[in-house]
Amino acid sequence: MGDPLRVAIAGLGTVGSGTVRLIEANAGLLAARTGREIVITAVADLDPRDRGFATESYRWYDNALAMAENTDADVIVELIGGAEGIARKVCETAIARGRHVVTANKALIAHHGTDLARAAEAAGVTLAYEAAVGGGIPVIKSLREGLVGNACERVYGILNGTCNYILTAMRESGRGFQEVLAEAQALGYAEADPSFDVDGVDTAHKLAILASVAFGCTVDFAAVHIEGIRQISADDIAFADELGYRIKLLGIAKRTPAGVERRVHPCMVPLGSPIAHVEGVFNAVVADGDFVDTIIQVGRGAGERPTASAVVADIADIARGNRVATFAVSAAELAALPAASMQNHRGAYYVRLMVLDKPGVFADIAAILRDHDVSMEAVIQRARAPGEAVPVVMTTHETAESAMTHCLAAIQRLPFCQEAPHMIRIEPF
Amino acid sequence: MGDPLRVAIAGLGTVGSGTVRLIEANAGLLAARTGREIVITAVADLDPRDRGFATESYRWYDNALAMAENTDADVIVELIGGAEGIARKVCETAIARGRHVVTANKALIAHHGTDLARAAEAAGVTLAYEAAVGGGIPVIKSLREGLVGNACERVYGILNGTCNYILTAMRESGRGFQEVLAEAQALGYAEADPSFDVDGVDTAHKLAILASVAFGCTVDFAAVHIEGIRQISADDIAFADELGYRIKLLGIAKRTPAGVERRVHPCMVPLGSPIAHVEGVFNAVVADGDFVDTIIQVGRGAGERPTASAVVADIADIARGNRVATFAVSAAELAALPAASMQNHRGAYYVRLMVLDKPGVFADIAAILRDHDVSMEAVIQRARAPGEAVPVVMTTHETAESAMTHCLAAIQRLPFCQEAPHMIRIEPF
Repeated sequence: MGDPLRVAIAGLGTVGSGTVRLIEANAGLLAARTGREIVITAVADLDPRDRGFATESYRWYDNALAMAENTDADVIVELIGGAEGIARKVCETAIARGRHVVTANKALIAHHGTDLARAAEAAGVTLAYEAAVGGGIPVIKSLREGLVGNACERVYGILNGTCNYILTAMRESGRGFQEVLAEAQALGYAEADPSFDVDGVDTAHKLAILASVAFGCTVDFAAVHIEGIRQISADDIAFADELGYRIKLLGIAKRTPAGVERRVHPCMVPLGSPIAHVEGVFNAVVADGDFVDTIIQVGRGAGERPTASAVVADIADIARGNRVATFAVSAAELAALPAASMQNHRGAYYVRLMVLDKPGVFADIAAILRDHDVSMEAVIQRARAPGEAVPVVMTTHETAESAMTHCLAAIQRLPFCQEAPHMIRIEPF
Repeated sequence: MGDPLRVAIAGLGTVGSGTVRLIEANAGLLAARTGREIVITAVADLDPRDRGFATESYRWYDNALAMAENTDADVIVELIGGAEGIARKVCETAIARGRHVVTANKALIAHHGTDLARAAEAAGVTLAYEAAVGGGIPVIKSLREGLVGNACERVYGILNGTCNYILTAMRESGRGFQEVLAEAQALGYAEADPSFDVDGVDTAHKLAILASVAFGCTVDFAAVHIEGIRQISADDIAFADELGYRIKLLGIAKRTPAGVERRVHPCMVPLGSPIAHVEGVFNAVVADGDFVDTIIQVGRGAGERPTASAVVADIADIARGNRVATFAVSAAELAALPAASMQNHRGAYYVRLMVLDKPGVFADIAAILRDHDVSMEAVIQRARAPGEAVPVVMTTHETAESAMTHCLAAIQRLPFCQEAPHMIRIEPF
């Protein structure tokens, strides 16, 4: 049995409390598996409320930064959250003082991952962030280590459980976005301010990290194209079903000749694809490697206990003395890969229009598509109501995003078009 | 950049050739990710045929054991196969000479894993076997490292791509086992002698290994209850569909108060379960941890390139100097957990009978079930044909395997029962 590994935990919110509980509950297991006792020596939080475990056994700090500056722990676990402020300072201070850092903070890694990785490498310490992507799913480990032999061309996934819960509940109940969001908030699956989740920002944080690990490039959050799920209607969900698709908010990173695509937006996914069946709060990450082909991992993407599982996996790697470069390759070698413009993206599209039901409508739409070389695959008009607004849905064959952008602008200018067209990209997984 | 890692490969069959090709194709990537060049110094195979790569760059041995005895490589990669004979001797010799061992040999690990782990630990070398279970899926890494913080109560999966291909093709085409097997053999998805696959032995090898990693116990192949898929008929597949199930050959390891269940048999899996949708040659492994909840991993379970990906992941861990105990805990601490008897298993059951269609049949069957406290859930009789043999299908609520065994024996003795009852266990995932 080696020396105990001393751990200090900054932030006793949901994940911090779960991490303490896991280390207490499975202490014997962890010692047997890592060959060392894992000992919490200090904790930091502003709020002294009762968390159901004996905080008096650990040195308590009200100020996490003071803890980072003074503790003799081997590892600082940052579970405060946020890209700036105290969380960032705690991590920078810990690294500067030669402490290993474990964090679940996707915003921090998405915005400052490259700089932090360089600092950690210079200091000879680990910066680990398994819990930042996919909750309890060991996705960073699988990509960096399990798929180490593969050139990875694409990685994508369902990275936000709140959005997946909302989309699943909309489909199952036929209700609209706002109603289901309110229910998700009541159940604790969505925050009071849901914008980070439903506008795709949280997914974009995680995607920026995945892209960096998969392609060995700098973490480039600014390069992510982001769309959320607020525009998805009950009609879209019903039409997707009719067309053989499920709507999922995906984060997709892909190497193309034009550069790296990093995009977050709702997608139509064929029912035959395994991730179409990943429902509710579950997350899924899919990686395509040149030797391994496709690997899919599914699990709980958030929550106290699954996230704590990922935090502790990072701590255990440190206890075992196992090291892997932060983003798969040395921070000095991380490539600043050019980003592909969204307008260069090619794919198939679903478009829903609200048009006045009168003769000549299709002819005008078809002419616009023809003029932009866009080839239609299917058209659905659900009901006839002469003189009234009805939904018209069409899907296209593969075409350029720029052509679609022009088509949609032209269609919106048609006099019978009652609202801005709704577009959802179709992904052929 | 550290010193190069020298690798010697024993066996240039499908996986051995794939491993050479991967190390050659992605050499730059591997060096950037591990910080060391990975260099093949020697290869061994009886057959000097052209494999499409320049074997003259490596020292060639006809005798893999001679290579293990003489090479100065850091790692011996054993890709010969088989639980005994040359494969076993190569691994034992390599360990005795202080070389790390990487193997894809599930039969060897299932039969001699505990002894080999003890020897490797005593010699201070790694014994790695990621490729032995789930092909390219990093399942051993995920269990030992990603889920290190969890007490694992159950691990199960679709572990044999040949069986999953056959069951999928039977369902899609409505054809019988023999016809689909012959097609699978023609396509190269099944061996000329398919018994290791279709009789469940290969799945049992992999399950024995998974149980050991998940529960920290000795590898106990003899404790695995094994049934294959030869008895599955086109009728069973059709009835499963009607009842809302898919039939999968699963390996299941589960801790119960009565001991560890290790069982391989066809299962009815509800259509709502993610692994019901894992089709064709794909494998899936599901692990339940006390903190992480359920993690599912899906990928190609065999083939040159996916298996090479797993072999190289093990080599890369050695290159990085990263070590994990062979079966999650020190070999000295591996528990010899008692095996639960299959007769103590509790679950739901599907039973298909061929009976003469005449009055009183149901009454006699129902009386037998009642006498053994077995509660019926559903009954299907597809067609009426008075005086002829017709299939009758029933499903039960949860009951004891021992009660089912007695019921089936009693039913088989009924005069109208035309053949031995077919039983398939229903798993409530």
